[in-house]
Amino acid sequence: MSAVRIGVDIGGTKVDAVVLDPGGDIVARHRVPVRMGDDGVVGSARDAVSHVCDIAGVTASDAGAIGVGVPGAVTGGVVRHALNLGVTELDLSSQLSAAWGVPVHVENDVNAAAIGAWHLLGDGRTSVAYLNVGTGLAAGIILDGRLWRGARGAAGEIGHIGIDPAGPVGADGLRGGLETYASGSGVALQWGREGQAAVEVLRAAQDGDVRAREIRERLLGGVAHAARILILTLDVAHVMLGGGLTGMGAELLDGAREVIREWEEASAFLASLEIGSRLSLVPGDQPVAAIGAAMLEVDHG
Amino acid sequence: MSAVRIGVDIGGTKVDAVVLDPGGDIVARHRVPVRMGDDGVVGSARDAVSHVCDIAGVTASDAGAIGVGVPGAVTGGVVRHALNLGVTELDLSSQLSAAWGVPVHVENDVNAAAIGAWHLLGDGRTSVAYLNVGTGLAAGIILDGRLWRGARGAAGEIGHIGIDPAGPVGADGLRGGLETYASGSGVALQWGREGQAAVEVLRAAQDGDVRAREIRERLLGGVAHAARILILTLDVAHVMLGGGLTGMGAELLDGAREVIREWEEASAFLASLEIGSRLSLVPGDQPVAAIGAAMLEVDHG
Repeated sequence: MSAVRIGVDIGGTKVDAVVLDPGGDIVARHRVPVRMGDDGVVGSARDAVSHVCDIAGVTASDAGAIGVGVPGAVTGGVVRHALNLGVTELDLSSQLSAAWGVPVHVENDVNAAAIGAWHLLGDGRTSVAYLNVGTGLAAGIILDGRLWRGARGAAGEIGHIGIDPAGPVGADGLRGGLETYASGSGVALQWGREGQAAVEVLRAAQDGDVRAREIRERLLGGVAHAARILILTLDVAHVMLGGGLTGMGAELLDGAREVIREWEEASAFLASLEIGSRLSLVPGDQPVAAIGAAMLEVDHG
Repeated sequence: MSAVRIGVDIGGTKVDAVVLDPGGDIVARHRVPVRMGDDGVVGSARDAVSHVCDIAGVTASDAGAIGVGVPGAVTGGVVRHALNLGVTELDLSSQLSAAWGVPVHVENDVNAAAIGAWHLLGDGRTSVAYLNVGTGLAAGIILDGRLWRGARGAAGEIGHIGIDPAGPVGADGLRGGLETYASGSGVALQWGREGQAAVEVLRAAQDGDVRAREIRERLLGGVAHAARILILTLDVAHVMLGGGLTGMGAELLDGAREVIREWEEASAFLASLEIGSRLSLVPGDQPVAAIGAAMLEVDHG
């Protein structure tokens, strides 16, 4: 008999944990604030799983394995350079496995979310790019149901592609990079303020602020360019948008589609690819990264 | 015992045929001029194979199957929209199979060349993008030894990615598209003349012509951008450059690497990816598309 699945998404502000039934549906979900540093991260993950298991009436060891998504570079269960979490190098797999008494699979959170997006689409053979428009901009890529990491784990790092040699210089040092256009940090950099820059910019754009409108146009154009790049390079069947800035909802999706429509008027070839209709938002605030983490025990490549 | 392999590359000016021994090495190669139209294309392919078989001392039926690479959209052995060949729709597989008495596998020529490039690298599990800098600009993609065509066969169509909103409008109707920067047709469009535009532009650039120098810079920058896009999206281990404009040789490779070096000075992340050292030219004028076509009988996805 298939066991329950447990998945954990460790983010910059919260830890999101889910218990899935053997069919892959969510039976319980719980979020706790994340604490910084090695002990804080491990402790928050343990708290989230403890609570979600109580809600579901299971224990951690009822799962054959537990999956964890986390920002940063992940190899062999070790997380490196998760700067938002105050983590330089942490063997998350060993520490959590010792605590929970089951194997723990750790994956980069955007890759985990891509697996979750693929699972929500419910077509095992499909290809999907999950485009995270969050603090940064990056994609997780599932080809024929398998996670594609690339030769050095850099697949999907499209935030560092340049789309305008006259564009602003980003935090990565590159001019006109996609991440500077279409991410929370990029919007804040252009706006010149930290914190809830995206919310401020969108409000100011609505009030007619010219500079805010320009930043908003760049954001929508950046998402459109990212979808165009993912489809012209990989020809994935679906590009699913997630991450903090998708809190904009239809404004983001419709705005990006409008940019794509303008391109399609100029180019019959681009129109034939139907990029806009392949683009979607994560449905109904589903915790894709936690769901994907729970699916990590299945072989995804 | 493994049979010999026969591969045919039908191009805009010539048909290139090879016979490979069971180990994959070339035992004979022959080129004939291509003739236009359905009958011309079929006839030239038959001539090329007939001659190369004579040279190798084999007959077409000594191969378990014969592979053919051809420009245009290929599905189920049928070629569509191969405009350079004067072909609208041609069931190349049926016609050649009837002539040769063996199964005939037909594939888009850039995809065939990607298989050839992968074969030359000699590492069955590696990932490679073959970037064709020819009349057009497109990539063929091999991931873990398998050809990746994408959901609708459009994978690798990176020529239609925009890298400059203030760039020239291309034949595809798109502004600042990669193909306009880095292809024979794009160079000709910018230079304002058909024919051997690239040769003329390079000579004029060397003579100090300002506009020719700008077009040359765009060509080198376009190849560099293409490599950056392929590696940041797919993280392929190798990007191999082929196609007519690689007749420039080291000037093209070194020029693109110089652009990449400038980016790397600005960005530690980009520098860590070592894009320049993953970039290479097809070695020694090898007929990669014909070699790849000969390998089509092996399962590549």
